Amino acid sequence: MVHNGIEYGIMQLIAEVYDILRRGAGATPDELHRIFDEWNRAELNSYLVEITAAIFAYSDPDTGRPLVDLILDEAEQKGTGKWTSQNALDLGVPTHTVNAAVEGRIISALKDERLAAERVFKGPDSALHGDREALLGQVRSALYASILTAYAQGMALMQAASREYYYDLDIEAIARIWRGGCIIRAGLLEDIRQVYRAKPDLPNMLLADVFRSAIEKRQAAWRSVLQAAVGAGIPVPGMAASLAYFDAYRSGRLPANLTQAQRDYFGSHTYRRIDKDGVFHTEWQS
Amino acid sequence: MVHNGIEYGIMQLIAEVYDILRRGAGATPDELHRIFDEWNRAELNSYLVEITAAIFAYSDPDTGRPLVDLILDEAEQKGTGKWTSQNALDLGVPTHTVNAAVEGRIISALKDERLAAERVFKGPDSALHGDREALLGQVRSALYASILTAYAQGMALMQAASREYYYDLDIEAIARIWRGGCIIRAGLLEDIRQVYRAKPDLPNMLLADVFRSAIEKRQAAWRSVLQAAVGAGIPVPGMAASLAYFDAYRSGRLPANLTQAQRDYFGSHTYRRIDKDGVFHTEWQS
Repeated sequence: MVHNGIEYGIMQLIAEVYDILRRGAGATPDELHRIFDEWNRAELNSYLVEITAAIFAYSDPDTGRPLVDLILDEAEQKGTGKWTSQNALDLGVPTHTVNAAVEGRIISALKDERLAAERVFKGPDSALHGDREALLGQVRSALYASILTAYAQGMALMQAASREYYYDLDIEAIARIWRGGCIIRAGLLEDIRQVYRAKPDLPNMLLADVFRSAIEKRQAAWRSVLQAAVGAGIPVPGMAASLAYFDAYRSGRLPANLTQAQRDYFGSHTYRRIDKDGVFHTEWQS
Repeated sequence: MVHNGIEYGIMQLIAEVYDILRRGAGATPDELHRIFDEWNRAELNSYLVEITAAIFAYSDPDTGRPLVDLILDEAEQKGTGKWTSQNALDLGVPTHTVNAAVEGRIISALKDERLAAERVFKGPDSALHGDREALLGQVRSALYASILTAYAQGMALMQAASREYYYDLDIEAIARIWRGGCIIRAGLLEDIRQVYRAKPDLPNMLLADVFRSAIEKRQAAWRSVLQAAVGAGIPVPGMAASLAYFDAYRSGRLPANLTQAQRDYFGSHTYRRIDKDGVFHTEWQS
C-alpha cells in the first residue's frame, strides 16, 4: 500500500511537469517524448519516467494523432493511494505529497464542473516566457527533488508503521525488492537501499548526505519552477506539497505555537511552553 | 465535523500568515496585534482573527514577555480535522486546504526531528525585502482568498454528503447557524448564506458573483505572497493547497490524461477518450 502511495505521488508530480511543459512552455508530445527519454537516461531513470516517454511517442492508429491528447483527463483510482493517506493520518506521519496526489485525482474527476468553472474565472496568462533550455533544467531538478520527498514520506511511514504494529520491517530489503521490479522501480532506490543499510533507524532519508546534497543543489531551481507555475496559474499541488514538506521539516520553529494558543483560547485545550515543563492554560480574556 | 475541518484550514492559514510576517518581515507580537486587529474590522472580520489579535497582545505574567513566543510549537489535535479529510477522501470531494492543515499539525509534532533537520539543511534567506505596507496588503488578500477556498471545500463536502447519505441538508441554514455563533463565525458567512439561499444547489460557492469577483481581485496578490514565501523557504502548505485547488478547479483540461495513460500502460486499467464514447485499452508496447 505504501508503494502505491509513493506511486501516486510520483505520477502526480510527472503530470504536473507535463502540464508545466505543455501549457506553460507549449511542448508537443514529440518534444515531451524526447525530454522524458533523456531524463530516463540519468538521475531520473525509472519505470514511470520510461513509460511516460513511451506514451508521448504513441500515435492513435485511427486518427494518427498522439494518443495522449485524446485521453479524457479524469484520473481514476482504486483506493490504494487514499488508504495510504488515511493510514498516514492515523499514524501521524506527514505524507504531504501522497495526499496532494490523491486530491489531484479527486479534482480531476470533476470534469464537468471544471469545464464550467473555466468559463467563469479569469486567470493569468499561462505561458512561461524565458529560455526553454533553462526551464527544462529547472523542471528536471524540481521533479527529482519532489520525487525524493515522496520516497522520504513513504519510507518514514513504513518505519512508523513498523514501530506501531511491531512489523519489524527491514527498510533496506524493501528498497532492494522495489528496486528489483515494481512500478516505482528507479535508479535512486539503490541509494535509498544503501542509506538504510548504513543507518536502519534514520528518521528521514533526506538527512543522509547523498540526499541532503541532492536536494540542496536543486533547491533554487525547485523554488523557481514552483514560483513560475504559481504565477502562470498552472496547478502544482504535488510539487507545492513536496516543497512545503521540506521547508516545514527543516524549520526548527513553526508557527504552531499560535495554533496552540488559539486552541487554548477557544477550547481550554492547554499548551506547553519552551521555557518550562508542564501543561498550562491561560484565561486569555481576563 | 465539517465545521472543524474548515476551522483547521483557517487556523493553518492564519499560522502561515503569522510565519510570513514574523520570520519573513520581522513583525513583533505588538505589531501583529495591531495588524490582526485592523483586519478584524473589515472583510476578515471573524472570531479566529479576533482572538489571534488578542493573543498577540497578551503578556506572560511571569516573564513580561509576549506569551505566544513562549508556547511550544507542537500543534495537537483531537481528530476532527483528520476525520474531515478521511471522509472527504471517501466521498471524493477535494479538500486540499483542510488536508494541508491536518498535515501542518502532524509535521509540527515532529519537534525533535525538526530541530535536528534545521541543523542539517541549508535554506534560503527567510527575510522578505520590499515595502512592508505593500506586503501587508498582499498578505491580507492572500489570507482572504485562501479562507474562501476553505469554506468552499467544506460547503461542497456537505452538499456531497447530503446527496450520498440523503441528509437533505439546508446549506443556507447551516451558514446562518455558523454565523450566529461558533469558532468559524465570520462576516463572510452572511455572503455564503445569501449565495446558497439564491442557489441551494450551486456546485461551488466560488462560482457565485460575490466570491468570484472577491477572489479574482485578490489573485495577483495571492500568487505574489505564495511566490515570496516559496522563495524565502517559509512553508505555506495551506495557502499553496488553496491556490492549487482554485487553479485546478478552473482548469477545463488537467494533465490527468497522462495519469490515465500510465495506469493503462502498467495495469491495463483502461481509459476514456475525448473524441468518442466507450472504454479503451491500448497495447502501448506493441
